[in-house]
Amino acid sequence: MYRLPAKDYDFLLRHVTAGQSVLDAVTGGEVTFTDVGDVLELASAVAEEVLLPLNQVGDRVGCTVADGHVTTPPGFADAYKTFTEGGWIGLGVPARSGGTGMPQLLARAADEILCSANLAFSLVGGLTTGAIMVFDAVGDDTLRRTFLPPMLAGRWTGTMNLTEPQAGTDLAQIRTMARPSGDGTWSVTGQKIFITWGEHDLAENIVHLVLARTPDAPPGHAGLSLFVVPKYLPGADGRVGERNSLTCVSLERKLGIHASPTCVMEYEGATGYLIGELHRGLPSMFIMMNAARMGTGVQALAVADRAYRQAEAYSRERVQSPVPGREPGAPIGEHPDVRRLLLSMGSAVSAMRGLASQTSVWLDLGQSDLQARRLAEFFLPVVKGWLTETGQQIASDAVQVHGGMGFIEETGVAQHYRDIRILPIYEGTTAVQANSLLGRQVARNGGALARTVCDLIEQSLAELDAHDHPAARRVASRTRSAAAGARSATDTLVKCVADRPRDAYAGAVAYLNLWGLLAGGWIHARILNAVLNGADPDTADQRIREADCYAVHHLGRIPQLVEIIEAGEIA
Amino acid sequence: MYRLPAKDYDFLLRHVTAGQSVLDAVTGGEVTFTDVGDVLELASAVAEEVLLPLNQVGDRVGCTVADGHVTTPPGFADAYKTFTEGGWIGLGVPARSGGTGMPQLLARAADEILCSANLAFSLVGGLTTGAIMVFDAVGDDTLRRTFLPPMLAGRWTGTMNLTEPQAGTDLAQIRTMARPSGDGTWSVTGQKIFITWGEHDLAENIVHLVLARTPDAPPGHAGLSLFVVPKYLPGADGRVGERNSLTCVSLERKLGIHASPTCVMEYEGATGYLIGELHRGLPSMFIMMNAARMGTGVQALAVADRAYRQAEAYSRERVQSPVPGREPGAPIGEHPDVRRLLLSMGSAVSAMRGLASQTSVWLDLGQSDLQARRLAEFFLPVVKGWLTETGQQIASDAVQVHGGMGFIEETGVAQHYRDIRILPIYEGTTAVQANSLLGRQVARNGGALARTVCDLIEQSLAELDAHDHPAARRVASRTRSAAAGARSATDTLVKCVADRPRDAYAGAVAYLNLWGLLAGGWIHARILNAVLNGADPDTADQRIREADCYAVHHLGRIPQLVEIIEAGEIA
Repeated sequence: MYRLPAKDYDFLLRHVTAGQSVLDAVTGGEVTFTDVGDVLELASAVAEEVLLPLNQVGDRVGCTVADGHVTTPPGFADAYKTFTEGGWIGLGVPARSGGTGMPQLLARAADEILCSANLAFSLVGGLTTGAIMVFDAVGDDTLRRTFLPPMLAGRWTGTMNLTEPQAGTDLAQIRTMARPSGDGTWSVTGQKIFITWGEHDLAENIVHLVLARTPDAPPGHAGLSLFVVPKYLPGADGRVGERNSLTCVSLERKLGIHASPTCVMEYEGATGYLIGELHRGLPSMFIMMNAARMGTGVQALAVADRAYRQAEAYSRERVQSPVPGREPGAPIGEHPDVRRLLLSMGSAVSAMRGLASQTSVWLDLGQSDLQARRLAEFFLPVVKGWLTETGQQIASDAVQVHGGMGFIEETGVAQHYRDIRILPIYEGTTAVQANSLLGRQVARNGGALARTVCDLIEQSLAELDAHDHPAARRVASRTRSAAAGARSATDTLVKCVADRPRDAYAGAVAYLNLWGLLAGGWIHARILNAVLNGADPDTADQRIREADCYAVHHLGRIPQLVEIIEAGEIA
Repeated sequence: MYRLPAKDYDFLLRHVTAGQSVLDAVTGGEVTFTDVGDVLELASAVAEEVLLPLNQVGDRVGCTVADGHVTTPPGFADAYKTFTEGGWIGLGVPARSGGTGMPQLLARAADEILCSANLAFSLVGGLTTGAIMVFDAVGDDTLRRTFLPPMLAGRWTGTMNLTEPQAGTDLAQIRTMARPSGDGTWSVTGQKIFITWGEHDLAENIVHLVLARTPDAPPGHAGLSLFVVPKYLPGADGRVGERNSLTCVSLERKLGIHASPTCVMEYEGATGYLIGELHRGLPSMFIMMNAARMGTGVQALAVADRAYRQAEAYSRERVQSPVPGREPGAPIGEHPDVRRLLLSMGSAVSAMRGLASQTSVWLDLGQSDLQARRLAEFFLPVVKGWLTETGQQIASDAVQVHGGMGFIEETGVAQHYRDIRILPIYEGTTAVQANSLLGRQVARNGGALARTVCDLIEQSLAELDAHDHPAARRVASRTRSAAAGARSATDTLVKCVADRPRDAYAGAVAYLNLWGLLAGGWIHARILNAVLNGADPDTADQRIREADCYAVHHLGRIPQLVEIIEAGEIA
């Protein structure tokens, strides 16, 4: 049942997202498209053989806590061993910190494959990699030497500890305190909630990155610092030492991702090590949070694609009611409405994958290219917000295609619908992403960056104009209108954001969705350019259909979004 | 936390949906608006005191089966006793069959209140009432005398047995056989799946209405007959007699409505009684299915309203991040995006309740008025399809307003998101409703009925034109455009449905949603007329805001739906 998206990535890298420039820039051309394909094949093998068989049992059994010990579902500990032995933790970690230094583009493609097999499981690896990136960016030599090798080897895992009951979106409200112990370490006290994989039995140690306040620190964000608070203090020879004063006091009973323990963590004078500068905790944490925004978008893509493929497979098998214009015995996938739904889902998945890949490309090139870095920053909230919102709809559509069977847990598609529901919430809700897009990426530069993106889109459309093909004409025309809508909405918002912020921010989510939809249209325009230039003839018909469908069924939403933005707040 | 919608119904009945004409027509004016209010107050008391406290425990504990016996969650059996003693089963049942003969309008309003407190529980009552309606319409005197009194008294419950593994949407595939036993009874053999409340411990007997094939019957739908197959055969003096040969062999593990047992039923030569004429089983079953289409729409309204109110209450309490244009400490409900989301949800709920009530009014008046009956038939698939699709979105939005807490089952809002997911599926999926709307209500009369509805809408808009109020102008203008879109889409579909059925049916769901959205705009236009004429001044501001929001955020979707319909199937 599991389908390898490696071929889609090959197509995207070669023909759509300028993957060669990334391989050149990041690996000096040492890594080829063939190598990329090999890595994704390996990821698919792990996904299929190790992670996929644990997905439903993990959901059904879930995690339990007793006396602070968390028991994960059967098979998870062994799977984590296999997974880490494959080197997956370090795939995108720079070589200077002991990783393989592959481009984000490749690391995220592998993430999609792994997450689509088992989202709950994959979170522990993602958090560990995220924590490693913080050590890589701001950890001193001692911290790096102590924590990086066991985390990369999979013996220790990582977490991020931000949320407290009164401090969710508003981290300025954090109350957890870290006081100097006099020996260079800190004593951390407070309660953190919603700590994903905060306690478990997969690894010998857990490295918590804890955002806390220090005595006499300024109020608000500026008074937060970041601390490394391990479950066991590092001992001699890389082994674990003394047990630290922190406990998982309870687990949440959640809608989805049951196999991922969501912990209430109690720190009672736990020993912590300052990482990064004092009072610079939030910028350090943002390293992890930015990676998590990209990661969450990819998680949504992964679950959505899995749900879509499952629905498509079911629609090819299930026979029910005669189908207009088809022979008797045609499966439900031939019914005009089911076919419409599947094409709409598939075209959205392609747009999502394309946008995620393109944003990874910009992140990779952005190491040395300012324009690419700015484009990545512009699209990161869109990837987090739009992919998770769209993914949710796709998972719901996949349930619908299954009819009554979709509501039965055994079918497995309801789990995707439950699992994916956290994605528009955690790591900053859709509204938070939308406010960030509008406030930081648009208002601050008077909309200049947004207009630059529209110019880039126009370049792809001009290329499309050169093809004498009806689908090219339709897609170019609709994407051009959509881009005009984006320009107009940008002007509206830039004009009113200072004087009438409530009117501007009432349209922020519509604006984020507009950009997601438009970027998806851009991706389809480029896919269409590629196939009309002769790339991958076997899939050309399906790709043309998807581009056509996307233009009508998805881009067609943009005029209303522009109207919503223009209307502002309903007074 | 539970909020009584009785006031909204009072407003709708008095000022929007011509409730007086229904009370006159159905009860000869004996029942007044005050009586209606009293009944809804009583329903609210049962909902609040009896059903609501069991909703979360029912979800958590669910039902279990052992040796054919189903155990429902603690408290359910007592609650069913209290519920039926209140006379709720017979509220909408005609007096000739022992009910109180209240209008559907009132029965459905009470349904909303009961379902919003506990959807899983309410299904058993709804099925019993539905079965009673079949006995009322096609049962002979003996059957009615035997089965109606214990069902009305709550001692026996009812079910509908349609689905088999190979026969879901396509009932022509039914294989369950009923053979004459020679004594006037029938011997029923076969397996039925997805049987809601098919076995339980709430009542002493369960009356299954089973769709089955008879020997030598014609193939397909025309060979189906309907049988009454009770768990216990009726004994002397209205007591139960011999155990019949039918068993619940298993329960489904489902995404939601956990407290409602979904049974696989095995009939092994069970004794059945033919109800209605031989080979006329499907029309008989359609009595129950039509009631269920209305009922399912109301269920969606109930859960959506409950989710909306819960989100609204949370948004008034939770404080997080400073709010633009508001004093420090303002709750999240004041954030422009959260306010936008809540207003959009609330305006949709009002539209849903108005359309459901209006359709009930047509059903009631349709007993003696052909035009009303035709309008009811036109809107029944819309009530089933659009209310359930929209309700789903509202439940998801309610989760979003709660942020991370929304994903925690204890909060209770995730349960609404899970429970409501069955509603666009059972009793005919949204696509089935859409095909019925297009095929039976539009294509058969060349779009005449659809155009009549547009004319009726224009009458309400002309009334709105007479008010010199900016919201009236905006809502009239947008609803008028939406109605023009409906006319144009109707023309498009009527033209192509015969020659290019695949193009027509590819747009069927878009067409159904268009009608739901437009009908909602019509309702808001009429609400606006009422408040601008001075009705209920206390709620006028909120109702005007909702109408304005609905026009931009919901009606604004219609132009794209028209485009989708015009595009037809993506070839």
